[in-house]
Amino acid sequence: MKRLRLLTPGPVNLHPAALAALAQPQLHHRSPEAGELVRDLRERIARLAGTGGEAVLLGGSGTAAMEAAVRALFAPGARVWVPVAGKFSERWCEIARAAGLEPVCSAHDWGDAVPPEAVPAGPLDGALLTHSETSTGVLQPLAELAARVRERHPEALVVADVVTSFALAPVRMDAWGLDAAVLGSQKGLMSPPGLAAVVLGARGLERLRSAGYYLDLARELRAQRARQTAFTPPINLIEAAAAVMAALEAGGWEARFARVREANERFYALGEAAGLAPVPASGAERSPATAAFYLPRGASYTELSQAFAARGWRVAGGQGPLKGRILRVSAMGYFEPGELERAWGDFAEVTAGLR
Amino acid sequence: MKRLRLLTPGPVNLHPAALAALAQPQLHHRSPEAGELVRDLRERIARLAGTGGEAVLLGGSGTAAMEAAVRALFAPGARVWVPVAGKFSERWCEIARAAGLEPVCSAHDWGDAVPPEAVPAGPLDGALLTHSETSTGVLQPLAELAARVRERHPEALVVADVVTSFALAPVRMDAWGLDAAVLGSQKGLMSPPGLAAVVLGARGLERLRSAGYYLDLARELRAQRARQTAFTPPINLIEAAAAVMAALEAGGWEARFARVREANERFYALGEAAGLAPVPASGAERSPATAAFYLPRGASYTELSQAFAARGWRVAGGQGPLKGRILRVSAMGYFEPGELERAWGDFAEVTAGLR
Repeated sequence: MKRLRLLTPGPVNLHPAALAALAQPQLHHRSPEAGELVRDLRERIARLAGTGGEAVLLGGSGTAAMEAAVRALFAPGARVWVPVAGKFSERWCEIARAAGLEPVCSAHDWGDAVPPEAVPAGPLDGALLTHSETSTGVLQPLAELAARVRERHPEALVVADVVTSFALAPVRMDAWGLDAAVLGSQKGLMSPPGLAAVVLGARGLERLRSAGYYLDLARELRAQRARQTAFTPPINLIEAAAAVMAALEAGGWEARFARVREANERFYALGEAAGLAPVPASGAERSPATAAFYLPRGASYTELSQAFAARGWRVAGGQGPLKGRILRVSAMGYFEPGELERAWGDFAEVTAGLR
Repeated sequence: MKRLRLLTPGPVNLHPAALAALAQPQLHHRSPEAGELVRDLRERIARLAGTGGEAVLLGGSGTAAMEAAVRALFAPGARVWVPVAGKFSERWCEIARAAGLEPVCSAHDWGDAVPPEAVPAGPLDGALLTHSETSTGVLQPLAELAARVRERHPEALVVADVVTSFALAPVRMDAWGLDAAVLGSQKGLMSPPGLAAVVLGARGLERLRSAGYYLDLARELRAQRARQTAFTPPINLIEAAAAVMAALEAGGWEARFARVREANERFYALGEAAGLAPVPASGAERSPATAAFYLPRGASYTELSQAFAARGWRVAGGQGPLKGRILRVSAMGYFEPGELERAWGDFAEVTAGLR
């Protein structure tokens, strides 16, 4: 059976450079070539994240990087603000609790932008923010939120999940005042899942503490500064991600960001023409990583996804309280020439059937 | 530049079935096909580990699985015995300390088999054992050690690192009284690194506790019983490992074990003919995963590894106190027809130069 092509907001269709890397003979992670790949990818990630700081690679999912960042930057008992407006900001809250922190989790409607006024008063050791909330399609006002946190709580560390904004939209850690950012390989980097990174700005590097074992960022940072890794890394995925970043850089990041944003807006235009309401509230900025729509009353997500599958596409539904209630598609992966046009055409035809 | 072929005890040359899986279009981890792969690989692993229990897959290295097992099976303060006779048994000790346990780490000469008499008296909550000690080439007497632990401490949980024995030598969890075993994808499974597993026997399943977040085995087990994973898994590596296991099973595991053992013994015979002394002590059983030799006085490991590289091979040196003092080669990976014969020939010629 032919495998469905992915219109999902991660994982995504692999970039040809990733597939070419995966076809290589196995590289030993203690070889000079592997050390060079580790250095290369760390530098590319830090540069694209807009920081003079450093990236630390981890074998695991984006969640592993989220947990590593929380444990490395905050001691148990630390008070951190987490504005919850979707599945992934909710995850920050869970991770903070599991690490023994005392998160102050403010609740916001899923689909809303978090208002900077929500930054709490009182002592605060940090904030765990979500840039692109993949579960709702909202691009949160990260720069504004970070600025407000730093204004009210100058010593608080600001940590951001940029899993579905990295390599898809500008991320400017130093300019925005982010001390750490986490990302994964299977979104804008168009590589297989299994590789993640924590990017640390100057204050993040300064305030790093050793915590845990496998996810101990301080230990990994020491090893990676010597072009090593503390443990056997997913070197095949490192090679894939580095190759994709090199290919995308050659085409220019701004051009890539514009292409993805325009492709995503095309889905929004088609969905709205079919009468579907976007999940992001009218005042919220849309993430380029996914176009999310409420289903009309009575429409079945299962049937809808089957209609897409019949045309060769896999789409995504909702998570948590939005399960069964929304449709999500994404243009952040790789598409063969003409493939995205076919996706738009099929999207228009399938959603027209919902009216 | 042509990539060196690997004679290293992990990672190893990829099995063609792994490469074929990696060439597939990206699969979504929430698809029915992915759920079926998760089920399939979990069952194959548990069966080959010789348990009626269950395997839990994790995205990360074998070390991640070691830490997950320790945190899931022991509370902080637990007293666990760790016989240290190499780099990987030392790691058990470090992980136990990092998790807040109170390990009783007995020291044994690197290269020795751990004697069952070393099992300590006094209260014991568990034992963290190493089956194949990859740093020395010793196959520890796991069945005997586990039996002695259970005899003296019937309630203690026995956890084993089978990273370089799994799919290379018999592992019989239930028969030997192992409650948990950990393994990784880049050794006997001839797949890329980045996937690990904890296999749980009946008592391991019973006594599982929730701990941590990303490495929380209890959470993962619940998800995987429903053919899901708690977080985005390295599904490409799961597909690769499942494909390799299917291919190896078709050829019969006993035949595979015999082939690897004989190929490894061939390296030992050639090395001894060149006057090299094996690292495993005379009373110790040799692991099929690696042939390890002391270098003659005055010989340089760097020069030796360069001589192998000039012939297209990457070999391994020593770790910890054996760094610079030993040479390790391995036949556990995939070799093209005639390739292993060429490796033996080159090994004989290069080591002859050491006399």
